[in-house]
Amino acid sequence: MPLVDTRFATRRRKLASMLAAQRVDEMLVTNLIHVRYLSGFSGSNAALKVAKDLTASISTDGRYTTQIAAEVPDIEAVIERQCAEALLSSVAEGRRVGFEADYVSVAALERLKKACPEGVTLVPVTGVLEEIRLTKDPLELQRLTEAAELAAQALSGLVASGELAAGRTERDVAADLEYRMRVLGAERPSFDTIVASGPNSAMPHYNAGDRTLVDGDLVTIDFGMHRLGFNSDMTRTFVIGHATDFAAEIYDVVLRAQLAGVAAATPGTKLADVDRAARDVIVEAGYGDYFVHSTGHGIGLEVHEAPAAARTGTGVLKENMLLTIEPGVYVPGKGGVRIEDTLIITSGAPKIITEWDKQLTVI
Amino acid sequence: MPLVDTRFATRRRKLASMLAAQRVDEMLVTNLIHVRYLSGFSGSNAALKVAKDLTASISTDGRYTTQIAAEVPDIEAVIERQCAEALLSSVAEGRRVGFEADYVSVAALERLKKACPEGVTLVPVTGVLEEIRLTKDPLELQRLTEAAELAAQALSGLVASGELAAGRTERDVAADLEYRMRVLGAERPSFDTIVASGPNSAMPHYNAGDRTLVDGDLVTIDFGMHRLGFNSDMTRTFVIGHATDFAAEIYDVVLRAQLAGVAAATPGTKLADVDRAARDVIVEAGYGDYFVHSTGHGIGLEVHEAPAAARTGTGVLKENMLLTIEPGVYVPGKGGVRIEDTLIITSGAPKIITEWDKQLTVI
Repeated sequence: MPLVDTRFATRRRKLASMLAAQRVDEMLVTNLIHVRYLSGFSGSNAALKVAKDLTASISTDGRYTTQIAAEVPDIEAVIERQCAEALLSSVAEGRRVGFEADYVSVAALERLKKACPEGVTLVPVTGVLEEIRLTKDPLELQRLTEAAELAAQALSGLVASGELAAGRTERDVAADLEYRMRVLGAERPSFDTIVASGPNSAMPHYNAGDRTLVDGDLVTIDFGMHRLGFNSDMTRTFVIGHATDFAAEIYDVVLRAQLAGVAAATPGTKLADVDRAARDVIVEAGYGDYFVHSTGHGIGLEVHEAPAAARTGTGVLKENMLLTIEPGVYVPGKGGVRIEDTLIITSGAPKIITEWDKQLTVI
Repeated sequence: MPLVDTRFATRRRKLASMLAAQRVDEMLVTNLIHVRYLSGFSGSNAALKVAKDLTASISTDGRYTTQIAAEVPDIEAVIERQCAEALLSSVAEGRRVGFEADYVSVAALERLKKACPEGVTLVPVTGVLEEIRLTKDPLELQRLTEAAELAAQALSGLVASGELAAGRTERDVAADLEYRMRVLGAERPSFDTIVASGPNSAMPHYNAGDRTLVDGDLVTIDFGMHRLGFNSDMTRTFVIGHATDFAAEIYDVVLRAQLAGVAAATPGTKLADVDRAARDVIVEAGYGDYFVHSTGHGIGLEVHEAPAAARTGTGVLKENMLLTIEPGVYVPGKGGVRIEDTLIITSGAPKIITEWDKQLTVI
């Protein structure tokens, strides 16, 4: 698969080009998500070393000898249980080696220091891989789009089959939706599926419990699928039987806020301004105190990653970033609404990859 | 719920009693699994501080104000986004504060140092919580037993309903089993469910793919449910249609090894000897080179935790430890068998909490 090879080498080239600014000669990558991102290796024990001159070495243990040869044909693997230590031990004297200070524990650093050859300096590095991951390459965009489309398809199946209905529990609905995602190719849900009904819909971090759906409920469903290393994330809020005046009112406010947030998500726009675009609609409608989280987040190898569309968000949007737009209104004791799409930032209007009706759907 | 309160306070008392030996006055707990274990709080951002005199303080952010009051009625919460820093900032001069060196990243330690009041010393601590978690208290034993029994019930449903059958894919079977666990109360699978059929059964770390089950296949199903913070883990290997001579032979070897391992799992037995008891049976049958992993592991808040029943395992079994016994034989290209139970170590014979037929089941 030449496409795959090119992708990983390209990513490693980006990393290599950033090492001089970090004042290191080589980067020791130990976060498994980053090892996979830079090499394609998906095993549960590994380390990767990339040098400024683009030479790379990788290590895993004996369980994965066959797998690493298949997944990483372009780098020879060192088979050793203590992967990071093994790669570090062969570094030449005088070299400065960066390590991922956000992921290496204090105890793990002590072990690295013991394995570090005389004359080699370990240097804490932060944020470099995260910066590379901020904008997505073509294969990432394809994988993220596939995951989002398959997840949306699972929701369509759930609704079409009548599995979202009065008389069923939140847990039943979550189980059905996760089952549909699994059959469509998910390795697991990206996060514990949220099916929050009635008063539970007013709790943004509720999961799914034993409550039975009844007529008049707002039901917020927030879900995603993890597939081939990537994640999806979308939310729709439904009403069961009929919409109360309260439900119709806050739904309208949140939908207008969501559309405003999506419209603002263009290259060059400050992330704080994307948050403001959605938030202003809710504040103007008098529900500002009930929108208790930020407007959106990046998504990719992790469900939540940079950038952050928040009041405190820094930086601007760029083409090929991914961003969720997910405003919500949560009125304790009464109910809540959240509507969330995932977008690819393009040169023009953002591309919504979680295509699904956003008008209030009465079940 | 006085039972719950007593349990958490008892655990904190154990921790407090071990602090002097670590030469610290207080322990700053930041691993969320440990925060939950010691307090009951299940939110996604928290820190807990426990002092030698048993005083405790806990912190989370504004999203969880209501939840922490409900889950942790016995400790007043500090509401602050930077939880660990908030708890650290109020420590009195001259105190030594332990932090979890296995989980605090190098970058996070830098942030702690900045928040650390003058005259307060940060001390790396490892292994203390893990030692407390080695033996399970009554409520843990109850939760672990419930998860194991519900998971076994899901497997019964799968087999009884004909969902494990020729013509279906590994992924279909995994999806059905996970669905059954979810409906029975799982919040999620404890790990990606393994359904490894035919030649795939010879790969101990295979998950579940698109292969269709056919007559004569060995099918290894390794699965667990995460429920209320605890995990289960069990494996059964089936044959589809009929057992080949090869399948019958290695099944018999693995079953005898598994029974020998279970029989050896008594208090006072060295963990290396538990491994040897199972391994010897496989070695004597001539399949020693095909048993490529260790015999078992502890389980509780994590799927894999201490102790390790391995050739290199240290220490002895004690009452109220949990241990899996899961020998396997994997012949590349031909197929494999693994049989796994989870046991509670008791004063007599171990209690198997994953009760399910271990004779070769032909589907």
